[in-house]
Amino acid sequence: MRILVAGTFDIIHPGQIYLLTEASKLGDVTAIIARDENVKRIKGKQTVFNEEERKLIVGSLRMVEQAVLGDPHDFFVRVREIRPNIILLGPDQGDSWLREQIEKEHLDIELRRLPSRIDYSSTWARELVKRIYKREEI
Amino acid sequence: MRILVAGTFDIIHPGQIYLLTEASKLGDVTAIIARDENVKRIKGKQTVFNEEERKLIVGSLRMVEQAVLGDPHDFFVRVREIRPNIILLGPDQGDSWLREQIEKEHLDIELRRLPSRIDYSSTWARELVKRIYKREEI
Repeated sequence: MRILVAGTFDIIHPGQIYLLTEASKLGDVTAIIARDENVKRIKGKQTVFNEEERKLIVGSLRMVEQAVLGDPHDFFVRVREIRPNIILLGPDQGDSWLREQIEKEHLDIELRRLPSRIDYSSTWARELVKRIYKREEI
Repeated sequence: MRILVAGTFDIIHPGQIYLLTEASKLGDVTAIIARDENVKRIKGKQTVFNEEERKLIVGSLRMVEQAVLGDPHDFFVRVREIRPNIILLGPDQGDSWLREQIEKEHLDIELRRLPSRIDYSSTWARELVKRIYKREEI
């Protein structure tokens, strides 16, 4: 089974380890790394690590078969290349645009969502910022 | 060959990936993760990730055979358990205390040092803080 996960994967935290571990239980994991320009445009802030650094780090995780940079303009370029059986979403990742495009292109891809856990994702992002500031104040 | 590396391994950055990749070329890598209380005492600040989180993340890297928490009081407790052939040091890690103890205990361990690279270690730690602040200002 080919499993696709996608995200920014900036500072690696336990929530991402959880997502990738669960993904790897389903099959071979490809991680699409969001491009710097897209993160900046969508989230309005730049990452700590640039896209090549993020790709290097995520690709070093044992649960990841390969890490690839996303297409800057069309997310589905990589989806068509990888032809995943399952796209595994984090608890906070939107899926309506994915669902629409999958239907439109008649792709045989299952969208599955990771069950929520206290230590995941956006909770983690906020937690990280808090911890980093706390650390610098000491 | 049993290769030992040791460090805080807080926010994973490309410098650490470099150290662990080079270590894994020499043999099976055990990473000793510094304990929270020791980091706080020695560096005067707390980590972003606690010791269990740091162990989880480092242990998820494919170059690492096992990640273990350091002994809180005596670094050599783990060294005696692991019995490494080589301890690989980062470019900025001190070695005189290690060398002394190895001689004192008549241990057959080679101390090897990773050649310096621009993107490593303390350079990286400073760079990270700069990048994190820059990110938060946006």
